[in-house]
Amino acid sequence: MTSSSSASASSLPLYQEVADKLARLIQGGVLRPGEKIPSLRKVSGQYGVSLTTAIQAFIQLEDRGLVEGRPKSGFFVRVQPKPIKEPAFQRQPAASSITQVSVGGLQSRLFDAAMVPRILPLGGAVPVPELLPMVKLNRSLAAVARRQGKSGVAYDMPPGSEVLRREIVKRTLNAGATLLPQEVITTCGATEALMLCLRAVTQPGSVVAVESPAYFGALHALEELGLRAVEIPTDPEHGMDLDALEVALTQHDISACLVVPNFSNPTGSLMPDAHKRSLVQMLAEREVPLIEDDVFGELHHGPHRPHLAKSYDEKGLVMLCGSFSKSLAPGYRVGWVAPGRYYDRIKALKLTTTLATPTLPELAIADFLANGGYDHYLRSARAFYAANTKRVGQAIRLAFPEGTQVSQPQGGFVLWVEMPTGVDALRLQDEALAHEINIAPGPMFSANQGYRNCVRISCGVPWTERLHHALQTLGKLAARQM
Amino acid sequence: MTSSSSASASSLPLYQEVADKLARLIQGGVLRPGEKIPSLRKVSGQYGVSLTTAIQAFIQLEDRGLVEGRPKSGFFVRVQPKPIKEPAFQRQPAASSITQVSVGGLQSRLFDAAMVPRILPLGGAVPVPELLPMVKLNRSLAAVARRQGKSGVAYDMPPGSEVLRREIVKRTLNAGATLLPQEVITTCGATEALMLCLRAVTQPGSVVAVESPAYFGALHALEELGLRAVEIPTDPEHGMDLDALEVALTQHDISACLVVPNFSNPTGSLMPDAHKRSLVQMLAEREVPLIEDDVFGELHHGPHRPHLAKSYDEKGLVMLCGSFSKSLAPGYRVGWVAPGRYYDRIKALKLTTTLATPTLPELAIADFLANGGYDHYLRSARAFYAANTKRVGQAIRLAFPEGTQVSQPQGGFVLWVEMPTGVDALRLQDEALAHEINIAPGPMFSANQGYRNCVRISCGVPWTERLHHALQTLGKLAARQM
Repeated sequence: MTSSSSASASSLPLYQEVADKLARLIQGGVLRPGEKIPSLRKVSGQYGVSLTTAIQAFIQLEDRGLVEGRPKSGFFVRVQPKPIKEPAFQRQPAASSITQVSVGGLQSRLFDAAMVPRILPLGGAVPVPELLPMVKLNRSLAAVARRQGKSGVAYDMPPGSEVLRREIVKRTLNAGATLLPQEVITTCGATEALMLCLRAVTQPGSVVAVESPAYFGALHALEELGLRAVEIPTDPEHGMDLDALEVALTQHDISACLVVPNFSNPTGSLMPDAHKRSLVQMLAEREVPLIEDDVFGELHHGPHRPHLAKSYDEKGLVMLCGSFSKSLAPGYRVGWVAPGRYYDRIKALKLTTTLATPTLPELAIADFLANGGYDHYLRSARAFYAANTKRVGQAIRLAFPEGTQVSQPQGGFVLWVEMPTGVDALRLQDEALAHEINIAPGPMFSANQGYRNCVRISCGVPWTERLHHALQTLGKLAARQM
Repeated sequence: MTSSSSASASSLPLYQEVADKLARLIQGGVLRPGEKIPSLRKVSGQYGVSLTTAIQAFIQLEDRGLVEGRPKSGFFVRVQPKPIKEPAFQRQPAASSITQVSVGGLQSRLFDAAMVPRILPLGGAVPVPELLPMVKLNRSLAAVARRQGKSGVAYDMPPGSEVLRREIVKRTLNAGATLLPQEVITTCGATEALMLCLRAVTQPGSVVAVESPAYFGALHALEELGLRAVEIPTDPEHGMDLDALEVALTQHDISACLVVPNFSNPTGSLMPDAHKRSLVQMLAEREVPLIEDDVFGELHHGPHRPHLAKSYDEKGLVMLCGSFSKSLAPGYRVGWVAPGRYYDRIKALKLTTTLATPTLPELAIADFLANGGYDHYLRSARAFYAANTKRVGQAIRLAFPEGTQVSQPQGGFVLWVEMPTGVDALRLQDEALAHEINIAPGPMFSANQGYRNCVRISCGVPWTERLHHALQTLGKLAARQM
């Protein structure tokens, strides 16, 4: 009664109330591991809710890893998960040290394995192909090819397709930003956008502040441009440590700060909006540009699209990079950048890297966004990734050696796994490849080859027995190293 | 009789013999400007050849700019062209001087105007859209999208599509190169290929030997990478002056040499195969890599596909860059590089610029190459560009001020026009834009803002009254400056 009224006071949805109640029964040991939980019909009667609500409650319990459905038998309490903690982060020496970056070789290795069909792709952060609205996208592609005629094969010079830029701008409205189409330049994926931003505001030898751990693609770009990294400790829940960043800004001549505020890669952390505002202000005071990578922003597991740091940009110092590679069609290679005061610079630089963004892929995505039900598709994608990251996370907790920590991402579809000290992720990657499993070893996410006992596991693979077995294999391989 | 037998001795095709005879009648003043030439039937009877042969002879005379067809009236001798000379090249100080490059602003300006539909596009080197096999390409695109299913939206990580690489390699066989598919990496156009090659073999401050005049995209890439240029004089007929290059190689620490041996942009020069061999040997002796840009190679006006410098590469020092942007579909953004010993380097660098080449455009081009009649289409494209460059060149000679020199390209579709000293091409571009005509001013093609009295005119626009009028306008604007 007490808990029920308190739940009502906080106006949780009804199914959440029911799920919470059942969860308490499980966690309190009333319903024990392996035991069948009450049937849907019974729960519906007991709590005075509709069957639909009861089903939603069961799905949530399953998502939380507390119960599992068995064909024709109903729902059972799962073998009790280990207590879940956020990964206790290996804090880098950070702020005080500047590092020459070297992750390129690891990235090539990861992607070579990613292109071998028989290898289970837990390495790259690639969306689940089965989930993508291919038929509708193909229809958009065929339609624009027909409709455009000769302009479809022509160069679409920077800033790129205006219809696409208009659709992009509409979507960023939901994330608190009020951009205009003429502030956006389309790119060949966010990779080109990041590269252009770095080139616009750095010189070889410049220092860039990055998260720790950070997306290896960004680190590799730093490496190839001859830039140096200052790694700022990054909390797996709230993102970059702004106090540490402030110290670094005081100690070093930092040319740019590169951050993934929404569902950072690899930890899935979400920087609170208040922190984003502080970050933008802190950098603006020193006239340091912020390169904001938002490729995972649309894939929030919670109900709300988080804000962009760009929303708080008053001086045109935030260079917002996005793409459709994580949310829609990696192979289309369509991304974009809203580079604020660096617009002209980026537009000129783009001419020397790819000249133009592919015309028909741009237009097909614009058509799909305008007419294809992008929001409808995103809703199911979000639900899938929310459930799949939980399920895979849970399986890792069960399969990996005692002491393993697994992140609980609030968006996107990658998990950051910290194994006990002594387990070598590079060796684990080798051994996993021998079992036809690809994973991303921790040192890829560090400018100074840290995180040797960590791996990133992509959840862009639907749950199957093979996946389950692969996670168990990884756990055994890790345990054997100890 | 004498001339006839000598023609037979050199085994010219029959229509060529007939054309030569008629040409002599015209050049000798027997048939005068404006006069009707003998009818097809008459020529067929007079020279004892078939009607088809007579038609071929007439087409060749038209291509040479000697006669013009008038609807329902037959063929007439054109108003006599001015004597044609190769442009007397402004030789740059070259070899002895190294230049910081600065052409980016000019390139942005050119492309901004190129995206305005009402402006006549004589600026960018863009193929005639009407000529491109759009229906077949669209069919290939729709077919591969359907056939590929989920792999069509997936990343196609470097080296890129194997079917496309196989088709590319087959085509380079015709150009003397024996490459394997695994030696090729696909790119987002030749622009990305050039950028990757430059990044692979230079550091900021490195010196690169380039043609003079040179393609502005390459010069802009040098500029953005902080590289310095040594401009090597380039003959509009035979390409780069190898003696001058040798001097430059002795005097400077040159990191790479960037050349367009086949139909250089902007002059259309064709380096003889023997020179290509010498070029490759000269550089190999010093272990200097050659970046070979062959984007126009398929668009030869003569009967034979010229060889690639890559054909003579024994040490893996030639980095061959190609694309389908001039020959097939600019907006698809599909190019490639065969980087020899720099393969691993290029593959890793590609990950930081665009990650992957767009999947479906790659596959659509591969499908078209395999099944769509690429050779058939290329034959008509070559004939069109051969005729159109001649026709436009002829119109320029008639319309521009006395003393103007016009190149006679042996492939591709751009003309290099040298106006009398005193005419300022940048001012001419301004004035032309006011008349809704875009042209590429000479200083874009020079690392040190030379060629101020030159312009490049693209012949990627079919002949119309508007085009004719535009060329006359340009001529008047140039004359007014004198």
